[in-house]
Amino acid sequence: MIQAGIVGGTGYTGVELLRILATHPQVEVKVITSRAEAGRPVHELYPNLRGHYDIVFSEPDLDALLACDVVFFATPHGVAQAMMPSLIDGGARVIDLSADFRLKDIATWEHWYAQKHACPELVEMAVYGLPERYREEIKRAQLVACPGCYPTSVQLGFMPLLEQGLIEPGQLIANSASGVSGAGRQAKIGSLFAENSDSFQAYAVEGHRHLPEIEQGLRAMQVDASEALGLTFVPHLLPIVRGIHSTLYAKLKTDTCDLQALFESRYKDEAFVDILPQGVFPQTRSVKGSNVCRISISQPQGRDTVVVMSVIDNLAKGASGQAVQNMNIMFDFAENEGLQAPALLP
Amino acid sequence: MIQAGIVGGTGYTGVELLRILATHPQVEVKVITSRAEAGRPVHELYPNLRGHYDIVFSEPDLDALLACDVVFFATPHGVAQAMMPSLIDGGARVIDLSADFRLKDIATWEHWYAQKHACPELVEMAVYGLPERYREEIKRAQLVACPGCYPTSVQLGFMPLLEQGLIEPGQLIANSASGVSGAGRQAKIGSLFAENSDSFQAYAVEGHRHLPEIEQGLRAMQVDASEALGLTFVPHLLPIVRGIHSTLYAKLKTDTCDLQALFESRYKDEAFVDILPQGVFPQTRSVKGSNVCRISISQPQGRDTVVVMSVIDNLAKGASGQAVQNMNIMFDFAENEGLQAPALLP
Amino acid sequence: MIQAGIVGGTGYTGVELLRILATHPQVEVKVITSRAEAGRPVHELYPNLRGHYDIVFSEPDLDALLACDVVFFATPHGVAQAMMPSLIDGGARVIDLSADFRLKDIATWEHWYAQKHACPELVEMAVYGLPERYREEIKRAQLVACPGCYPTSVQLGFMPLLEQGLIEPGQLIANSASGVSGAGRQAKIGSLFAENSDSFQAYAVEGHRHLPEIEQGLRAMQVDASEALGLTFVPHLLPIVRGIHSTLYAKLKTDTCDLQALFESRYKDEAFVDILPQGVFPQTRSVKGSNVCRISISQPQGRDTVVVMSVIDNLAKGASGQAVQNMNIMFDFAENEGLQAPALLP
Amino acid sequence: MIQAGIVGGTGYTGVELLRILATHPQVEVKVITSRAEAGRPVHELYPNLRGHYDIVFSEPDLDALLACDVVFFATPHGVAQAMMPSLIDGGARVIDLSADFRLKDIATWEHWYAQKHACPELVEMAVYGLPERYREEIKRAQLVACPGCYPTSVQLGFMPLLEQGLIEPGQLIANSASGVSGAGRQAKIGSLFAENSDSFQAYAVEGHRHLPEIEQGLRAMQVDASEALGLTFVPHLLPIVRGIHSTLYAKLKTDTCDLQALFESRYKDEAFVDILPQGVFPQTRSVKGSNVCRISISQPQGRDTVVVMSVIDNLAKGASGQAVQNMNIMFDFAENEGLQAPALLP
Repeated sequence: MIQAGIVGGTGYTGVELLRILATHPQVEVKVITSRAEAGRPVHELYPNLRGHYDIVFSEPDLDALLACDVVFFATPHGVAQAMMPSLIDGGARVIDLSADFRLKDIATWEHWYAQKHACPELVEMAVYGLPERYREEIKRAQLVACPGCYPTSVQLGFMPLLEQGLIEPGQLIANSASGVSGAGRQAKIGSLFAENSDSFQAYAVEGHRHLPEIEQGLRAMQVDASEALGLTFVPHLLPIVRGIHSTLYAKLKTDTCDLQALFESRYKDEAFVDILPQGVFPQTRSVKGSNVCRISISQPQGRDTVVVMSVIDNLAKGASGQAVQNMNIMFDFAENEGLQAPALLP
Repeated sequence: MIQAGIVGGTGYTGVELLRILATHPQVEVKVITSRAEAGRPVHELYPNLRGHYDIVFSEPDLDALLACDVVFFATPHGVAQAMMPSLIDGGARVIDLSADFRLKDIATWEHWYAQKHACPELVEMAVYGLPERYREEIKRAQLVACPGCYPTSVQLGFMPLLEQGLIEPGQLIANSASGVSGAGRQAKIGSLFAENSDSFQAYAVEGHRHLPEIEQGLRAMQVDASEALGLTFVPHLLPIVRGIHSTLYAKLKTDTCDLQALFESRYKDEAFVDILPQGVFPQTRSVKGSNVCRISISQPQGRDTVVVMSVIDNLAKGASGQAVQNMNIMFDFAENEGLQAPALLP
Repeated sequence: MIQAGIVGGTGYTGVELLRILATHPQVEVKVITSRAEAGRPVHELYPNLRGHYDIVFSEPDLDALLACDVVFFATPHGVAQAMMPSLIDGGARVIDLSADFRLKDIATWEHWYAQKHACPELVEMAVYGLPERYREEIKRAQLVACPGCYPTSVQLGFMPLLEQGLIEPGQLIANSASGVSGAGRQAKIGSLFAENSDSFQAYAVEGHRHLPEIEQGLRAMQVDASEALGLTFVPHLLPIVRGIHSTLYAKLKTDTCDLQALFESRYKDEAFVDILPQGVFPQTRSVKGSNVCRISISQPQGRDTVVVMSVIDNLAKGASGQAVQNMNIMFDFAENEGLQAPALLP
Repeated sequence: MIQAGIVGGTGYTGVELLRILATHPQVEVKVITSRAEAGRPVHELYPNLRGHYDIVFSEPDLDALLACDVVFFATPHGVAQAMMPSLIDGGARVIDLSADFRLKDIATWEHWYAQKHACPELVEMAVYGLPERYREEIKRAQLVACPGCYPTSVQLGFMPLLEQGLIEPGQLIANSASGVSGAGRQAKIGSLFAENSDSFQAYAVEGHRHLPEIEQGLRAMQVDASEALGLTFVPHLLPIVRGIHSTLYAKLKTDTCDLQALFESRYKDEAFVDILPQGVFPQTRSVKGSNVCRISISQPQGRDTVVVMSVIDNLAKGASGQAVQNMNIMFDFAENEGLQAPALLP
């Protein structure tokens, strides 16, 4: 049994961590911080947690966090990097769900997030928490940078193709759509029910902060790093609460590969990647509340464009579920501990 | 570890049973029947179950069911009563989620369901599976008739008031609203997305089959059975998948009772009934996927009408969750075994 | 052709006024004010209006408003009363969609809205803009106080019964449910998509500001004013954008009245009240975008409780549509001018 | 004033025709057929039409249809072609909303629709009813084949680029998403609320019937017909009632074109195509209930992939609205007659 601390527990990734950890047999949540809600029981904010937690939001406190075996950051970008040096010095093992340590290139981070990075010296040691590619590094990591929601769905979909050099890397397209919970629990007109219900639209078409993260990840997968990689990434906003669906397009270099077999083989030992049978396409609801990524591969009309569809729950495999998966790896628990319940369907 | 059989597993209560039992440590599903889908793996119909079950739908077979420790019926009314005599004779313990054995008065059943009852002689032995009132009888039951979804939400809301004789029983009102999954997984125009989305309406106002079931249950709770009990029950259709919200109205006989304390006291030992603090009103999403019933009590403007709000997940506490709770009681498992995960929120 | 001014045009009732007036042959919108958006074209805020309006939001200006034939207030309470004396002095005819002039009793208004009324002397002259009851007064009115959304649906449902003295007035119940647009276009966590989608709940059970407005209206309808009238009003929040559904309950004094005939007769000359055939229950979608109120009457099981169901579009008949209906009456246009399009279904 | 007949009026395109024509000053609906609902008033099926129509569904009757000035087919494919020879011989002017006369190549039609074409000799005379490209032909047409919903959104988005030869035609991608009303008003499990709500998925990835229609249309737009054109078209199912959003991707041949100016210029005289300002992306709700197509153009990160976003209401510009637009052109009415109301927002 380990003890966990959560920094910034009032958002949707915070409550999702609490929901998952409520039934995790190896973890007890000892500390959960929120400046705005300090002193308030978590179940007052989240009635689904009534009967599961007595814990109360507290002001962030370094000693309390250092007394934990693992610290999660479920905060907006910029928060984790401010506290990270003290935590790392104090020996904490940290899983950061924010974007602070995902990009290896500091200048790129500072460009896209429009602020100075507070501890660039720690970026190098951060391990990118995509277990399906970096499991060994995660085991030994002190600081894990959890991937973004879109980046998880896109990278898992392109990975087998790029690792085998089967597609033209210069003209990749990721057409993604996310549920509104991805925008967080913040009072914004754009996130209102009456603005999103019964509607659909693209946003951030000119450039979304997940673009450099995805491109960095995809480049690392290329068998021939000399080929220029370019991704057009268009996110859309779905009138659903949870779920990301990425439809990926690439031009095939070859027509002799059994793509279905390739994907099945690549992910055969992965507990949380499920390759669907040929001709079955994934629904976001099939992963609602679960840590699974479901993927389909298609080659429409036998032409030279491959289409990959990939779904995750943005709050689970796209955030808190993957964070717990990383924790399980770091602490040598069964990788699916606490993550075994099937998705809620219907 | 016991073995379970499920008759009629293709509907929403069937898949919900499978979802819950997938992580129940004491139960293995050995048989799941469906004439229409015989031979097909359950995960083909319900992709959320991929990786959780290898089981295949089979034709109903008495011997296979009798080899199970418990048999669930997740069928439309009329099916369970046809097979029940053989199962009871064979010694099976049965939990029927349908309406076949809920009404004690055969004539009433035959009137509301417009067919002859196939085994009226077994109705008497059936125990009404509302644990909060009939726990002791359930322990020893061979045949449990699981309450309907509306009846569960309405009875739990009125029970403390009727047991104490605090309200006029002749003018009860239950204004209930249910998610569309309550209509089942049947191809009907009235259940289409384009017919229900972004809309709301009452239905079956003149008389819903759950009316006699609720009235029978409420009468059994009356402290003074000589008082005539009458309920006006108006169900509505909500554009949500899961959830029932009942708003109950009754005229108080007294103004000296602490209703909040009464409800808290009545349910203090109940794992699945949660009385919310004064002034907090229950959201259906706070019980989505969980077996909990959350209840609020209010006396608006201090007048003599009491308002009780009660929410459940119609597929969980309103059907399959309560069925598993009954099974846990019947087999002396912890009553919350397999039912501990918090609701999915957001 | 008259000229109209709109004060506070950025909210949902503002855009709905613009949508309706866009095709009204007798009205040109000359002025639309918003402090926050002054200088911005309305179609930037509301893309559905692109191609329909060139008008730009402006700072509120008394002279500009006085140059209009009619001025609408689509503002939160408190705003209209601050400007009203100058407008009334200047001879403007005003239609106020806010709550400022609905309650005749100043103390009651000040209690429920928790502020001092800025011009109590004008309350008396305000005509309550429910055409089905006050058409003649509206024709001559200089100041019309448009009814609230819930009050419109509840009053039209109870009116025939109270006018004939057919129900016990002391135990009335209005169980209402509204779409989220009723909460306005304000950045509040409680109105977020991720907080409301796939959920349902009651709110303001202890007392909603529409309660005194409804009770005032119902009392005026009573045939015998000496009978005490009491209403229990419980509003709920629906996961839909537009629509109010009120389910009304009352105890009948008599069982010899043909309620269906009564309602059909009472509303036979009303263009915007539609009594459905017996056994057909109204869907909120059947009035989406239209000014119609659809009503059904039922007497379940032939008992002594009458149930009335009443649906409106909260932004149309519940606000901006009714405001235009009032304007049509005041300016002697055909009462349905600009309001003839059928509801959008599906 | 002309008289219109509608064949197959019980589906969603049928009720949408009725809704639009209810306020069209130049058209009276004289005949509406439905074998299943013959004898039933249309307002019984569609309560939004109460008070707008007294008309009753009738059995299809050639003489009754020939007495009309225009006949609409709102039927599944295969129906219109069976009746067409008699109607054309009789001199009727026909607007077919189905797929029967859209494809010029009979073999292609028979391949994709898996049946023999009943009157291939009439295919040649059919004019493809996309007014923005074929307005002159539509004026004189006796038989108009209304474009499909996806094809309308995709063709309007690619048209300016193909007409100018600015993109590589061999690697076009159309990632489209449609509301569930696109699946029609048919009792299918896949269209149930509980199957679609809070979910999203791709479908028909291997090949959708609209693919050959779109490719035929795009080829006709190419400035250099010798270039091979190939489209990857992936449709998705949105949990909304109305709306199609197409996100189109193509590789630019040049980087010296002002794409925004090109689109604005191409559509400057079109009443129903609205090019949004740079950086504003279209929402499906901005066209709900209206005949408008809104389009945005983007060149993310200044790279060589152009992204076009195009939204329509699938029942309006994607079906019945466009049908009325075609009728207006054929009968020399103002092209926007009956189609002027702004979209319903929120």
